[in-house]
Amino acid sequence: MSLTRVLFVAAAATVGLGVALADQPFSSELDARKGQFKMLAFNIGPLVGMAQGNIEYDAATAQMAADNIVALASLHQTRLWPAGSDNESIDNTRALPAIWENSEDFAAMFDDLGSAARDMQAAAGTDLNALRGQLRALGGACSACHEAYRQPE
Amino acid sequence: MSLTRVLFVAAAATVGLGVALADQPFSSELDARKGQFKMLAFNIGPLVGMAQGNIEYDAATAQMAADNIVALASLHQTRLWPAGSDNESIDNTRALPAIWENSEDFAAMFDDLGSAARDMQAAAGTDLNALRGQLRALGGACSACHEAYRQPE
Repeated sequence: MSLTRVLFVAAAATVGLGVALADQPFSSELDARKGQFKMLAFNIGPLVGMAQGNIEYDAATAQMAADNIVALASLHQTRLWPAGSDNESIDNTRALPAIWENSEDFAAMFDDLGSAARDMQAAAGTDLNALRGQLRALGGACSACHEAYRQPE
Repeated sequence: MSLTRVLFVAAAATVGLGVALADQPFSSELDARKGQFKMLAFNIGPLVGMAQGNIEYDAATAQMAADNIVALASLHQTRLWPAGSDNESIDNTRALPAIWENSEDFAAMFDDLGSAARDMQAAAGTDLNALRGQLRALGGACSACHEAYRQPE
């Protein structure tokens, strides 16, 4: 495929997204950041399910889920959170203005998530007790940020 | 936060997602895999924009986008693609049955994406010519998989 063709396909995809949500400010940012949280939830799910006993412990599945959370927590966040994309400025987001008023704290909470995720990565594939031992810190990192920076439902 | 509380919050979130799309089979898988492609598109966007000259080249932005693509391409895919979640079996997906008929090839295409992403990661922060030099391979990895395994719009 030529570079011109690659650029054309990419541009067409961008236009397509723009048409679908033409009236939604920051639609691609909202799609992307919701996407990342869907991915995080999808990977925390089996760890919680195993800890609760609702899913049988499987070391390989637990390890892959933890690996994925580490990768997701490592993503650079800068472009995802433009000023004006809070829930008082636009619809379809629960992101509180406090994110932008406390941007260093918000960034530090992502670092906390990364730290808890790496601890889980080192434990999840060992056994169920090791997984359970790291889940409080990982779930706590999620919840701390949600409580500070996400509008309650 | 107690472990019980963490588990309760996680379970409540899971139930919430389930209620929203109770009639959609594989709704959490679809949300998560669409989320990952939204994130990929969001990060390829600035690289394409810079290559086209629509966005001014910025080494830090290009580097962060490339880093993110590497992280996203590294995600374990196993749980995202359960049998029966193709576009002939369920609605709201463009995933062709060929994915499951050629699962090794499909996995190899994700490996190709990872390889192209790492080459981009090594180039994107250098200068615009280096970025342009890797964009064909990266865009080609996206397009090759879309052409083989995604229903045309």
